[in-house]
Amino acid sequence: MTEVRYSPLLTDLYQLTMLAGYFEKGMHLRPAVFDLYFRKNPFHGSYAVFAGLQTALDYLAGLRFSDADLDYLESLGIFKRPFLDYMANFSFRARVTAPPEGTVVFGGEPLVTVEGRLAEVQLVETALLNIINFQTLIATKSARICLAAAPGQVIEFGLRRAQGPDGGLHGTRAAYIGGARGTSNVWAGQLFDIPVKGTHAHSWIMSFDDELSAFRAYADCFPDHCILLVDTYDTLRSGIANAITVAGELRAKGHELLGVRLDSGDLAYLSKISRQMLDEAGFAQVKIVASSDLDETIIESIRSEGGCIDIYGVGTKLATGSGPGGCALGGVYKLVRFDGQPKLKVTSDLAKATLPDRKRLLRVINAEGQFLMDIICRQQDEVVPGDQVYNPANPDESKTIPLGSTLKEIRQPVMDQGQMLLEKESLDPIADRCADELQRLPKGSLRLANPHIYKVAISSKLLELRNSLIKQYLDQLD
Amino acid sequence: MTEVRYSPLLTDLYQLTMLAGYFEKGMHLRPAVFDLYFRKNPFHGSYAVFAGLQTALDYLAGLRFSDADLDYLESLGIFKRPFLDYMANFSFRARVTAPPEGTVVFGGEPLVTVEGRLAEVQLVETALLNIINFQTLIATKSARICLAAAPGQVIEFGLRRAQGPDGGLHGTRAAYIGGARGTSNVWAGQLFDIPVKGTHAHSWIMSFDDELSAFRAYADCFPDHCILLVDTYDTLRSGIANAITVAGELRAKGHELLGVRLDSGDLAYLSKISRQMLDEAGFAQVKIVASSDLDETIIESIRSEGGCIDIYGVGTKLATGSGPGGCALGGVYKLVRFDGQPKLKVTSDLAKATLPDRKRLLRVINAEGQFLMDIICRQQDEVVPGDQVYNPANPDESKTIPLGSTLKEIRQPVMDQGQMLLEKESLDPIADRCADELQRLPKGSLRLANPHIYKVAISSKLLELRNSLIKQYLDQLD
Repeated sequence: MTEVRYSPLLTDLYQLTMLAGYFEKGMHLRPAVFDLYFRKNPFHGSYAVFAGLQTALDYLAGLRFSDADLDYLESLGIFKRPFLDYMANFSFRARVTAPPEGTVVFGGEPLVTVEGRLAEVQLVETALLNIINFQTLIATKSARICLAAAPGQVIEFGLRRAQGPDGGLHGTRAAYIGGARGTSNVWAGQLFDIPVKGTHAHSWIMSFDDELSAFRAYADCFPDHCILLVDTYDTLRSGIANAITVAGELRAKGHELLGVRLDSGDLAYLSKISRQMLDEAGFAQVKIVASSDLDETIIESIRSEGGCIDIYGVGTKLATGSGPGGCALGGVYKLVRFDGQPKLKVTSDLAKATLPDRKRLLRVINAEGQFLMDIICRQQDEVVPGDQVYNPANPDESKTIPLGSTLKEIRQPVMDQGQMLLEKESLDPIADRCADELQRLPKGSLRLANPHIYKVAISSKLLELRNSLIKQYLDQLD
Repeated sequence: MTEVRYSPLLTDLYQLTMLAGYFEKGMHLRPAVFDLYFRKNPFHGSYAVFAGLQTALDYLAGLRFSDADLDYLESLGIFKRPFLDYMANFSFRARVTAPPEGTVVFGGEPLVTVEGRLAEVQLVETALLNIINFQTLIATKSARICLAAAPGQVIEFGLRRAQGPDGGLHGTRAAYIGGARGTSNVWAGQLFDIPVKGTHAHSWIMSFDDELSAFRAYADCFPDHCILLVDTYDTLRSGIANAITVAGELRAKGHELLGVRLDSGDLAYLSKISRQMLDEAGFAQVKIVASSDLDETIIESIRSEGGCIDIYGVGTKLATGSGPGGCALGGVYKLVRFDGQPKLKVTSDLAKATLPDRKRLLRVINAEGQFLMDIICRQQDEVVPGDQVYNPANPDESKTIPLGSTLKEIRQPVMDQGQMLLEKESLDPIADRCADELQRLPKGSLRLANPHIYKVAISSKLLELRNSLIKQYLDQLD
């Protein structure tokens, strides 16, 4: 079984040069806290699905520099021997706090917080961002597509267009978290225990004298797993007609045809006629699978036109998270506390200012279990229903936490001293969490275009701290 | 040194079910030929840069199924024991023909052709597409960005936003092929011998009492590799002013400041003023590096406004190949010959019809070395200057191959019987090939918007063959 291993050199050079600089200045053991977060929800949507944590923790736990790695660094001519000797014994021992994977999260919220020695918390920036940005992007895309398709199912078919083999592998993992019920990707099936699905290609049909012979041969080989691709020549006249013939032959032998796959043309129209032809022929159990450059918008329009599709095979746009506001999630990793002092990156745009210090992330939930808003507060703040909370981008806007609501802390320590603190979750409970949380968002949050914007507020004490640090900086400038 | 290994299960399930079907029907050893090609150039551009071949060949050469892989396949309950036993001894022995990496190629051209037993040529479809699609996408994006920046240099900074660790790793490889002169990605530097570059982050500045102290500390640690990030507080008033102070201190000790990095704001304006301030202070040698969500369009507009940027650090959009017409390359892999017969996938849209049979890809070059057009012909066709050639999407359009031009075959066999036929190229000659070929395209081809469209024509014999296969199919239908 080919597991994936990433090098400790999976990092930007500047992490290593900064680390060497801190080492030389004797600062590398000072305590620091970094927050990983993104500013804007992807796809111009109202939410994101947090994913990639386990992959990231596995990486952190195994982070060791080999002699070959250190030799390579030495060959660059910018690192001194004492630093390289220090790195030979490096391991990641910092404390990591994060939500469970599958949690629905929002722009501006601290997701992963890393507290430890400056050396180790700085070094892991690039790998953490790379892993969390990508899987969160794809899990979110998957949630959007699966919500558009429901109650139809989504199967992820994107490996051939994914951004490299590992993009396909971990993209499939994230797609399953977001709601896809299977994949064509066999490696992902093996490593992550995801159901693998598939039909056959046009080349199967073209390798036989005619379509009917090709269908018969496939049905003969896989009588209980048979889905026939019907668009090689002419979907309705040839493909569906031949599929009905083979469905009858299968039934006569005690098997049932599982499905047909449409892969081109007007899927709304073709699926309606196909459904009708299959039903009239007595094959109401045959599922209609459709694929052909699908995404959430196309699926929504097929459904609004009455398309009869049971299973959507979604490839390119799911596997690469493409579409407006997609292709990459812009997560960042910022210093929020150093050497015992809260830190702030000043900027003229309040929406881009960091939130200083160690923080908690709370979710306000009403008696029906619906999510009302999220609140970011300092680690030590007491926040209770009735408190005023503030819009971080515009602190003149405030809200009261409704009386009778409950506040739930949505992050917890997940790693400390190089050890994972929680048992590894399998993907099913993670996907269930995601599906559950999406249904608890305010009405309108799941709309594809111009959705309701979920409120993320900060506590009065956090606002005060940020204001005082901004003032301190402005005073310094004068 | 952590190399990357991909599983033999890096495939869509349907490749394995088809293979099992061919095996059961006794067809798996019959000879077949597949072509890998894409239909549309990415980014609405006029060309693509072929990349990923070596990665793909390494994968093919090492393709073996372990016991764990076969146990997993057996656990799926769809494969029979004789097939799994056959797979235990599977190795890839087919013949692969392709252009060298870095070759400029065009939509509709057969890129990788795989000839061998049906079993092996079908199985590798997914992995070949995955690897070639991604690296070709990124190499093309890189070429576009580097051409927009020239004579300014481009450094790839995208690891943190790439689609997973391996997306970052092989994206960096492809970016270098397309013209990037370095990367921040240390792992890619180690594996592919790409120059690694970097500065420091805002967190470096924030870990010191003030910006000047932070600059001084960095210059002290790296006196000969010092590039200072100047936008943490205020680019001109604070950052450039402090950088000039430190440049003076470095010079007094016999060193020179290498550069400053701008990372936010109006880069055209800030770079002009920064250049002026540095020049007036006597630091004309200090390079200006800029980063901040750059792509080819933004770089072009910065340059048209007179921006003074020497080095562009390009991240997200390069590493993920994002932008209109990007994020994925839609390469396909189609059966063109089976069991001694040319094959055609029929479609109502001629532009999407496959080109049947084994083929050669020829480039027409004039006496000055400029590329005039490409021609696709059957393997056995003689094509010479003076011949008429045809637009495959509209055969009423024909052209004459200019007399005095030469025809160059741009593909060659690269693998046979599991052995690579050519020595592995390092990335520098590949990148040189790309840069050379881009300069030999017709005028207007490199324009970002609405470029000149390069002609790809087919020989009269290939047109005849396609016509006869289409007629044969239509006759069958009647």
